[in-house]
Amino acid sequence: MADAQDKIFSQFKEHSVAEFFKKNRQMLGFSGKVRSLTTIVHELITNSLDACEEAAILPDIKVVISELGNDHYLIRVEDNGPGIPKTHLGKALGQMLAGTKFHRYVQQRGQQGIGAAGCTMYALLTTGKHPRAVSYHNDKKISCEISIDFKTNHAELLNFVEEPNSENKSGLIYEAEFKDVRYEKSNYGVYEYLRRTALANPHAQLTLIEPNKESVVFPRVIQQNPKRPREVQPHPLGIGAHDLLDLAKAQKENRKIAAFLQNSLARVSANKVSELRDIVKNVDFDKKPDDMSWEDAEAIVQGFKLVKWIAPETDSIVPIGREQVEKSFMNIFNPEVLAVTERAPKVYQGGVPFMIEAAIAFGGGVSQAGKKGEIMRFANRVPLPFDAGGCGITEAVKSVDWNRYGLKKFDEEPIVVLVNLVSVHVPYTGAGKQAISQEQDVMDEIKNAVMEAARNVQKYISGKRRAHEVATKKKLIEGYASQLANDLADLAGLKIKKELHEKLKRIIENKYANAKDEDVLEDDKETSVKGNEDDEETEE
Amino acid sequence: MADAQDKIFSQFKEHSVAEFFKKNRQMLGFSGKVRSLTTIVHELITNSLDACEEAAILPDIKVVISELGNDHYLIRVEDNGPGIPKTHLGKALGQMLAGTKFHRYVQQRGQQGIGAAGCTMYALLTTGKHPRAVSYHNDKKISCEISIDFKTNHAELLNFVEEPNSENKSGLIYEAEFKDVRYEKSNYGVYEYLRRTALANPHAQLTLIEPNKESVVFPRVIQQNPKRPREVQPHPLGIGAHDLLDLAKAQKENRKIAAFLQNSLARVSANKVSELRDIVKNVDFDKKPDDMSWEDAEAIVQGFKLVKWIAPETDSIVPIGREQVEKSFMNIFNPEVLAVTERAPKVYQGGVPFMIEAAIAFGGGVSQAGKKGEIMRFANRVPLPFDAGGCGITEAVKSVDWNRYGLKKFDEEPIVVLVNLVSVHVPYTGAGKQAISQEQDVMDEIKNAVMEAARNVQKYISGKRRAHEVATKKKLIEGYASQLANDLADLAGLKIKKELHEKLKRIIENKYANAKDEDVLEDDKETSVKGNEDDEETEE
Repeated sequence: MADAQDKIFSQFKEHSVAEFFKKNRQMLGFSGKVRSLTTIVHELITNSLDACEEAAILPDIKVVISELGNDHYLIRVEDNGPGIPKTHLGKALGQMLAGTKFHRYVQQRGQQGIGAAGCTMYALLTTGKHPRAVSYHNDKKISCEISIDFKTNHAELLNFVEEPNSENKSGLIYEAEFKDVRYEKSNYGVYEYLRRTALANPHAQLTLIEPNKESVVFPRVIQQNPKRPREVQPHPLGIGAHDLLDLAKAQKENRKIAAFLQNSLARVSANKVSELRDIVKNVDFDKKPDDMSWEDAEAIVQGFKLVKWIAPETDSIVPIGREQVEKSFMNIFNPEVLAVTERAPKVYQGGVPFMIEAAIAFGGGVSQAGKKGEIMRFANRVPLPFDAGGCGITEAVKSVDWNRYGLKKFDEEPIVVLVNLVSVHVPYTGAGKQAISQEQDVMDEIKNAVMEAARNVQKYISGKRRAHEVATKKKLIEGYASQLANDLADLAGLKIKKELHEKLKRIIENKYANAKDEDVLEDDKETSVKGNEDDEETEE
Repeated sequence: MADAQDKIFSQFKEHSVAEFFKKNRQMLGFSGKVRSLTTIVHELITNSLDACEEAAILPDIKVVISELGNDHYLIRVEDNGPGIPKTHLGKALGQMLAGTKFHRYVQQRGQQGIGAAGCTMYALLTTGKHPRAVSYHNDKKISCEISIDFKTNHAELLNFVEEPNSENKSGLIYEAEFKDVRYEKSNYGVYEYLRRTALANPHAQLTLIEPNKESVVFPRVIQQNPKRPREVQPHPLGIGAHDLLDLAKAQKENRKIAAFLQNSLARVSANKVSELRDIVKNVDFDKKPDDMSWEDAEAIVQGFKLVKWIAPETDSIVPIGREQVEKSFMNIFNPEVLAVTERAPKVYQGGVPFMIEAAIAFGGGVSQAGKKGEIMRFANRVPLPFDAGGCGITEAVKSVDWNRYGLKKFDEEPIVVLVNLVSVHVPYTGAGKQAISQEQDVMDEIKNAVMEAARNVQKYISGKRRAHEVATKKKLIEGYASQLANDLADLAGLKIKKELHEKLKRIIENKYANAKDEDVLEDDKETSVKGNEDDEETEE
């Protein structure tokens, strides 16, 4: 028996994260042919957009999809970002958990450093062919093929060529063959993915060359990059004892815990530290940060909760913006009613800054497009077309009592709800970054944002309903007006029928004009509402 | 500008998988206090069950949960498995992606080598205290504390003590303090988790000591371990070109590709290789496996698809078993009807063996328990209480047209559906192992299994309905029988009223007894049905 047991342990092995995702590629979104293709474009575009914005370049991204055979495609993504220097090219495109994104406390689309390496992995697994990269960075043009050593999770660069950047371009081209993928124009395909990306990124110019060689341009609508989200320090309410201890041990600049707290966390002033000293009596704030014990860290974190803090800086998170969402939605759906909510920034898990923007489009073009109860989910402007079922956004939207807003059955109404979660760290449920974990604070805010928009849609709808009733009444009365004018004139024995009729008409006109204004145009502060008054239904 | 861009890359870093899951702990199931506690017990129990079975020991596992403060608990899991030797203890309990599970092609509960290290991580993150392990393995008793170096994903053993195993025990004790967790008796809590684990593992004895010191025993129902699933070689239809190439390069035993294929893959005989030679003309099957090119591998994999293969060995997958499911469901729910389906093994993604068993419990105890349209999901006997929304099992069960089976609204019927997916590799959507990816082959089989069971439930229900109608008719006719006997006797002028009545009654009895049998007891081959005839409703 002892032998049998030792035999088990002879099977003991260590594995790299690349091997893990090779075996569990579905966790990165590589399951199903259509989804796999969208995942590839999603990961590459995400990196391009982040890179452009970080370098303050207006994104101009081209996606070319060529069909090479049955479920076999060549995909090329070309951006005008800063490119990648030689030293980092392999790590950026062929090593998992390496990059500039993972450890920083700043709002970005990507946040894991897995995506592009995942695409390289999928190309290798399905075709055995190495993806090719061309990078124009500063004064160099480099090109090479990328391979992955799965056992060690390291990238290898093959056929490396370095030339002067004689064209003086900047940008990255990534090109790879994939099998087990399929191009399709469904809600889950690349076309729709890019359409939604354009919706949430009106400052980007996106071009898609489809397999049939047709070129689709999603043009740039705004001529400047969104305000750059500021990289922030952790907020005292958003840090755990373990991370605080790590920060304290890693830093060299401060000699005392007091100074360390002031310089490493957001919103910690000298005054706040003295408040803390009063609350956390067991901790010596004058000792070296390096001497901080777990007990110290835990007591400080407990103490943080008893101090009144200013909320995290709002410039750490940048939403799409009300105007942009309005423009985009009007462009795409031309709905009868559109309500957009932009909530104030909040924190989850104690102190991770986030913010919700929501929009509801109802009727008009939404009806014509045959859309019913659709939820468009975004996180940091990235569309999330998959895994709707397990997503906190879906749950939150469905938990709204739509009955209260005159929308009896959400799934059967001509309604599209957009939710964008903006945060320095999006709590995805998986490495495939398609669904949001059901954090209570986040769920509550999503629900609040959607209800606020719904309230305004309802106001508009019931206002319109009332306006419609009023119009009917008015017509009826107008019908009587002519008769009344005749009768009055007859009674008075006068020949002023025409003037009487005109006067009556004017009275009616005035009365109903005022009634309509009052009923319809009362907004909430955080929400804007646009009724599309030119819409045909309004004319009835 | 060049400077700004280089500054971005100065932020470039590499990270360990431990750092990744530290920052994204929600991906391992650590989100929400109740869920986090269940996740801990889930991971530890899963390892204990796997270890016991692998060592052919009947599992006897004790879970002790002690409340130390607000959302602060001590959790201790004690098993009678083989224990872990010193050399592997740290890796098994404190290093991610290390273990005996990840690379093997065998049905197991755990399959990633993340779980226990994830628990150690969560203990460290929430309390800063090191989990303690005591291992009785062969002639040694070792005990120590476990820490994780997150930067390198390596475990450290502290206060290590090695003694002779003087008690001659075997097993592992893992004990750790956790904060941000909560014990609760909901569908998502530890109690229900253990109840479901017992349901699917009737050979295990599970004991739970609750925070209020109450002891709950889920007793062993079967006195022997389930048949040990055999570790199998990959099936030709289940391997990709990349993996085939890896296998070929890694092996040393075979001098020719032909022999390599025969010895490394399941179901490949000399005959099949000659079939392949005829199909794949461009590949030299007599060259060294080490010389296999990507094109060779791809051509062979394409060729595999044109050969008729015997299905994967069925002893690679072992279900709970019809009898056990019946026993367990009867024990727990005592339903009015119970139908259990055990489908034949199939493959997904071309060749990964899997099998579905499904059970439907309807009415009786299910109604009394107030359960409506509940889906109990399992994978390799492990309950999956979370992430129902994004799970392929949920999708498949909901896609059944329940109307066809006389169950108008699934969500409002007194029905519990159990689905267990058994496979050498369960396609989880995430590292938290709570939802199944929507692989089409798997979805189809789940649907088939559930529909098969539903058909039998329906038969029973409509049979019962018919039986009820028949009984009503019978009662009616019986009412006439006495009068008829009188009338007949009068007509014939005889004094045999009593005998006539008895005879008539017997005729009626016989006729309706047969009718009932025929209607009700026609089963499908793969399904067993149990009607609970003693149930009160049947008596009407």
